[in-house]
Amino acid sequence: MERILRINMTDRTATFEPVPDRYAHRAGRWLTSSIVHDEVPPTSHPLSPDNVVVFSPGVVTGTAAPTSSRISVGAKSPLTGTIKEANAGTGWGGRLARLGIRAIVVEGMASGDDWWLVKVSQDEGRFEPADEWSGIKLSEAYASIYERYGGVEAIDVCAIGVAGEQRMAAAGVCFSDREGRASRYAGRGGIGAVLGSKRLKAIIVDDSGAEGVSIADQALFDEGRKKVADALMSHDITKPKGALNTYGTAVLVNIINEAGALPTRNFREGRFDGAEKIAGEAIFDGNKERTGSELYNHPCSPGCIIACSNVWHREDGSEHTSCIEYESDWALGANCGIDDLDAIAEMNQLCNEYGLDTIEMGGTIAVAMEGGVAAFGDAQRAIELLHEVGEATPRGRILGNGAVVTGRAYGVERVPHVKGQNMPAYEPRAIKGIGMTYATTPMGADHTAGYTIAPEILGVSEKLDPLDPDKASVAKGFQEATAFIDSTGHCLFIAFAILDIESGFEGMIDECNGVLGTNWDADDVTRIGGEILALERAFNRKAGFTNVHDRLPAFMESEPLPPHDAVWDISDAELDKVSE
Amino acid sequence: MERILRINMTDRTATFEPVPDRYAHRAGRWLTSSIVHDEVPPTSHPLSPDNVVVFSPGVVTGTAAPTSSRISVGAKSPLTGTIKEANAGTGWGGRLARLGIRAIVVEGMASGDDWWLVKVSQDEGRFEPADEWSGIKLSEAYASIYERYGGVEAIDVCAIGVAGEQRMAAAGVCFSDREGRASRYAGRGGIGAVLGSKRLKAIIVDDSGAEGVSIADQALFDEGRKKVADALMSHDITKPKGALNTYGTAVLVNIINEAGALPTRNFREGRFDGAEKIAGEAIFDGNKERTGSELYNHPCSPGCIIACSNVWHREDGSEHTSCIEYESDWALGANCGIDDLDAIAEMNQLCNEYGLDTIEMGGTIAVAMEGGVAAFGDAQRAIELLHEVGEATPRGRILGNGAVVTGRAYGVERVPHVKGQNMPAYEPRAIKGIGMTYATTPMGADHTAGYTIAPEILGVSEKLDPLDPDKASVAKGFQEATAFIDSTGHCLFIAFAILDIESGFEGMIDECNGVLGTNWDADDVTRIGGEILALERAFNRKAGFTNVHDRLPAFMESEPLPPHDAVWDISDAELDKVSE
Repeated sequence: MERILRINMTDRTATFEPVPDRYAHRAGRWLTSSIVHDEVPPTSHPLSPDNVVVFSPGVVTGTAAPTSSRISVGAKSPLTGTIKEANAGTGWGGRLARLGIRAIVVEGMASGDDWWLVKVSQDEGRFEPADEWSGIKLSEAYASIYERYGGVEAIDVCAIGVAGEQRMAAAGVCFSDREGRASRYAGRGGIGAVLGSKRLKAIIVDDSGAEGVSIADQALFDEGRKKVADALMSHDITKPKGALNTYGTAVLVNIINEAGALPTRNFREGRFDGAEKIAGEAIFDGNKERTGSELYNHPCSPGCIIACSNVWHREDGSEHTSCIEYESDWALGANCGIDDLDAIAEMNQLCNEYGLDTIEMGGTIAVAMEGGVAAFGDAQRAIELLHEVGEATPRGRILGNGAVVTGRAYGVERVPHVKGQNMPAYEPRAIKGIGMTYATTPMGADHTAGYTIAPEILGVSEKLDPLDPDKASVAKGFQEATAFIDSTGHCLFIAFAILDIESGFEGMIDECNGVLGTNWDADDVTRIGGEILALERAFNRKAGFTNVHDRLPAFMESEPLPPHDAVWDISDAELDKVSE
Repeated sequence: MERILRINMTDRTATFEPVPDRYAHRAGRWLTSSIVHDEVPPTSHPLSPDNVVVFSPGVVTGTAAPTSSRISVGAKSPLTGTIKEANAGTGWGGRLARLGIRAIVVEGMASGDDWWLVKVSQDEGRFEPADEWSGIKLSEAYASIYERYGGVEAIDVCAIGVAGEQRMAAAGVCFSDREGRASRYAGRGGIGAVLGSKRLKAIIVDDSGAEGVSIADQALFDEGRKKVADALMSHDITKPKGALNTYGTAVLVNIINEAGALPTRNFREGRFDGAEKIAGEAIFDGNKERTGSELYNHPCSPGCIIACSNVWHREDGSEHTSCIEYESDWALGANCGIDDLDAIAEMNQLCNEYGLDTIEMGGTIAVAMEGGVAAFGDAQRAIELLHEVGEATPRGRILGNGAVVTGRAYGVERVPHVKGQNMPAYEPRAIKGIGMTYATTPMGADHTAGYTIAPEILGVSEKLDPLDPDKASVAKGFQEATAFIDSTGHCLFIAFAILDIESGFEGMIDECNGVLGTNWDADDVTRIGGEILALERAFNRKAGFTNVHDRLPAFMESEPLPPHDAVWDISDAELDKVSE
């Protein structure tokens, strides 16, 4: 039987309850956004007991469907004040799904100064003291938790770092990767701070005795997963030793730089002179030089074909950090004017250790640099600033609360954000469609909410001119499809393959129908995606957001971006088409 | 001829231009809000060159009308993001009015690191270097500026302190009092930071050769001002040796405390056990003990009958600070749990020296105390924190940006604010009407926007039960009347007299008709007030504000306030009546 585990921090109870009929077929983002929409008063303070944190594995998470180990995390965001969904690839969600747990809802707030860990297993959610893991690096906390609870075979771990403990709005939610690293993040929107406000340090899942995900039509499901697997195995971006497996997501550095859309030095330029030094190719070559091997990437979670997760090694060949994603590489590198991979790796690892969203932190350091706190390119100072966040010094508290608060503290006008969330690694002035996604997604500036980079830059599904402003329908379509994919439990990266290979797209739907016993078709993908967006937008409206917030910062309308000298020139009416 | 002086900081020009016909009869808040509404893009960043700062003396400012020396200052607020009007009593506005200058509009932004002073006189606005006055205490800057430009008889001074230079959102705009003190503030909403972003340190006004305010019907005007003067001279609150002249506005400490509505320790309680020690009566008695004289208060500006501005003296009889207003006394005292007048005086003076809004700073320190930065009641630490603001340390930058940013930095949920501005000195749970003003005024939480305390506590015009929730029409009526009074140039304190004494109210209208040649009556007061509010609300809507922002923080709905154990229980529908 499918069930919801309700963890009440106020009275420290964990109770299984049946999934209400109204949530039938809902999983992943569809379910996390539904529960946040239904249970959180939209005008409540994100750090109040009225907020909840919802975890939900996707429809096919925990099955043999390839690349489907995403866990969706939802809450009202302390960074944006909007509804927020962030997701991560980890074995944690699959264990939950196999236990028949459709969602965990964390509600209320523990009194006192103690930290808590909840161990979820077949029969219970058990509260255990967690003070020993607070205030330390997440790699140490994870190692200790694994030692206590049986190792990487027995459990997966979700935890917050010191940033979350300190209720900082750039705090992400950290999940274990396949090797037990504290490295996979539902990073954006500060949901780590919400867990911190509730004094929940960690949730571990032990799926021993689990019955597994029940599948309504095994044959259909198997047919579907084979179609998806075939698509992933054959597409140049997703196949073994393909672009992502070889160079990781940082393969985009050179591509986006070439397009003049790599935001550099706090979005002052679209090309970074140090791009080649931090590109995915440089990571591959550097690792080869330092380890003596051509290292292909590994999967972040069980069952992934793409396997895009890299490790960066120190000069002595030891592991420095995992994973340097494109967006982290850019945020902590180009956007801060830093072209030293070892420095970027150290910053990346500090974000992992302190429990911080790399995108928000890179953007924040860039804003601080703009405000005179450090010079662009000063990697040593940037590393020190991240340590200040981990130590929660006053300056660290400014930075740990993100780019907008940092802009406030230092009187900086040029804060590239939407709805309080710093923009990610694609310049909207040079790639109009992604800018329309930033502006209109209910999530605040978020590339994963509608990744129009696929057609605009990579030529996936079709090749569009990035500077063409006529992208409302593209941005809308991608947001709808994404909301659906985020509900299946698949990694968004399957989109590269299934948008180009029609049978892959069919396979994804077959998988869902196989698990759920539904009869969804391609129209349902759009319909369901639209429904998810509609309820997210409904929450935001009740929280005080209007179309006026579906805009990019004014400075982008007047400041031309080299090398194209493009400005942001999408009209309000055009933007409003995306969300209507 | 009436004229507008346009100060363009980008190209450092100051140009006189005629007052457009559409602004006929508009002055004070009516004109500042009109110009901000018409010239500032609502979604622009408050610290961008697109913002303006508008100064306008009221209709009767600069005439012999009693208690009418208010200067209105308007801009888009960096604290709230709304349109903002703040005003102050000072001779500065009267000099402007006598020069025939209906408004100064400061626009654009100076490049480079230099600070500028503009000297306004009959024939020009002259730019002069002002670097020598940056980074120092405002009392020293004022003394030096007076020495350079001819003393208190020749000029009045408007300047920002280091908080404004640092573009902190709690930075006010400081004006000279009659003795040339740097003490009279258009404090709220961070307009000092807007001037700082433009690098305008000071504006001085020399009215030599001025023709004075032209008066259309001298006899009617004289009749009006006599009626207003008679009302002020006879009402117990406003007459010589009356409540305000004897005890200052801090006469309210005991009264509001008795009503259970004195917000104490960050709005946790409605009564402060140390209230008597910081009350207006204690200021009067303390001064008497230290100076050997019964000191009645002095006027902040020329021509004031009420004369409510106090001076607090040190043990040795020397002047410590002026003026300890009720709201400052409360913010830096009761709200921080501090009951030591000397400590409050020191904090008040530091706000004056650094150019800070006392209300926002007291509220901010209280939020910081709630976040564990200091213990409630620790006056020494509170003083140190204010010095950190003046020194712009990282912690000081947090605090200098107000209560909401401080709440963000320290993860504090209980931030008593509306639209980003900290609540002033009247607990809305215990006095419902003022809470409705906080919620619905276009200004963010602001008691001066519709001071329903008059009937709810003081029995002025009528006696209402503060706990009675049926106050929508009262809050609406007070906001309309206030918007009108803020446009006349009269101090809001004339309301105590003219609401009780009908001829005084008539006199105010006669004065305006006398100056302008209009035929306004009492209905026009409501009509014009309503028009002002409508254009302020129109700006806010275009800036992204909705009725959802016309609400008090959620914690006030659930947390009972001692001693009445009242919660905030005004429905959304009731609140929306105020602004409809």
